[in-house]
Amino acid sequence: MPRFKLELEYNGSGLVGWQRQKEGLSVQGLLEKAIHGFCGKHIVVTGAGRTDAGVHALRQVAHFDLPFEANVKTLRDALNDHLRRINNGERKISILSSELVPSEFNARFSAVERTYIYRIINRSAPLTLEHGRAWQVYHPLNISLMHQAAQTLIGKHDFTAFRSINCQASSPIKTLDYLAVESIETSVSIEARARSFLHNQVRAITGTLVNVGRGKISVTDVSDILESRDRSRCGRTAPAEGLYLADVKYNDSI
Amino acid sequence: MPRFKLELEYNGSGLVGWQRQKEGLSVQGLLEKAIHGFCGKHIVVTGAGRTDAGVHALRQVAHFDLPFEANVKTLRDALNDHLRRINNGERKISILSSELVPSEFNARFSAVERTYIYRIINRSAPLTLEHGRAWQVYHPLNISLMHQAAQTLIGKHDFTAFRSINCQASSPIKTLDYLAVESIETSVSIEARARSFLHNQVRAITGTLVNVGRGKISVTDVSDILESRDRSRCGRTAPAEGLYLADVKYNDSI
Repeated sequence: MPRFKLELEYNGSGLVGWQRQKEGLSVQGLLEKAIHGFCGKHIVVTGAGRTDAGVHALRQVAHFDLPFEANVKTLRDALNDHLRRINNGERKISILSSELVPSEFNARFSAVERTYIYRIINRSAPLTLEHGRAWQVYHPLNISLMHQAAQTLIGKHDFTAFRSINCQASSPIKTLDYLAVESIETSVSIEARARSFLHNQVRAITGTLVNVGRGKISVTDVSDILESRDRSRCGRTAPAEGLYLADVKYNDSI
Repeated sequence: MPRFKLELEYNGSGLVGWQRQKEGLSVQGLLEKAIHGFCGKHIVVTGAGRTDAGVHALRQVAHFDLPFEANVKTLRDALNDHLRRINNGERKISILSSELVPSEFNARFSAVERTYIYRIINRSAPLTLEHGRAWQVYHPLNISLMHQAAQTLIGKHDFTAFRSINCQASSPIKTLDYLAVESIETSVSIEARARSFLHNQVRAITGTLVNVGRGKISVTDVSDILESRDRSRCGRTAPAEGLYLADVKYNDSI
């Protein structure tokens, strides 16, 4: 059975997240429904990042095995067509590309780097165009202090303090390769890169960095929180609507 | 009566445009309703740019006269609160700032420069997050040719070829100060600046530049179309959903 890799974009508003649930629309569920529409079979899709309810994706990666050969462009266009029809015409998911891959390729386990971007709009006026697409923070943020604090989190650490109580990862030790805070006018973005993340790690880090930006805690407090391994000391978990799975990288060898 | 200047942002999807109409929600109508909610009087609001149905604004400017003094921050917050309530909680308009201005100030006639940005997503996969916020062009675009063609339109010209049949301006002669086409990956933006524009001018120019980008017409064809003053020769009017009124400038002296 040929294995296909899909690159996809989605607007997570109103979705229950990547994973199929008993109730509600999931990315996995919608994709599987589209694949069923294409080939008539129930086929399980594996995603690189199991994004939570409301989280968006600019480039999520998934794989699945089709019972027959298919042209990659035909497959992409057919799945997009099914995705348009199954959700009452409101398009949540778009297949950016499809590719035939070796059967060793696994969207989740072969991934060597994941990039998340967290978007904040830092202003007091309510959001219109960015509503549901960013976290609105009313208090003025000191971006340079936030970036400084972010640098103390880079590297291999026990990230227990920045982990959801529901996190199922076997170890809280992760290596954060890159964490940068930038702003253009009122738009702030936090970019994080690692092989893998703990559940809610980026959102917990964002909440903590916002506390630095607001002056509620200092840059050195962030290292203290990390070392404390105490979840109760980190900032609030930033809302899902600001988070984007932005990219997933694989070794060229696969 | 004190005169107030408002800076506002709006998501034009589902709105009939700036101007009050018999049917449908307009920016002017919603603002006047919010001002009525604040002061109990029907007051006419004047906008710098009379944007069409579906067109967005990142920074539109308006003015109106209030029958009594008001703190600018209180006014802004109260109007935002009324705007939230009058449209069933779906926020279309946000007041970014309010300011007390001299009674000579006129949002429309005192403006010395307007900036519009037209956004295109150049890809074949359907849009999700950018749906209703950009024009999706499927055919690959040559951005550098589009930018070259744009430069031939800069300056003082008779823009009859790029004017809507409904345009009410007394003269078709306008001075285009700046026109640039840029792209970052699949996202293309066309920025246009002038003291004022003809009706549909930016959208007609965009449609024509897209024809250059697709290779349907050449760079020199664009100067020929301009000189021809023949509306039938310009490209299709690009859809409203990609257009943003991005900024309005005034002389410091007012």
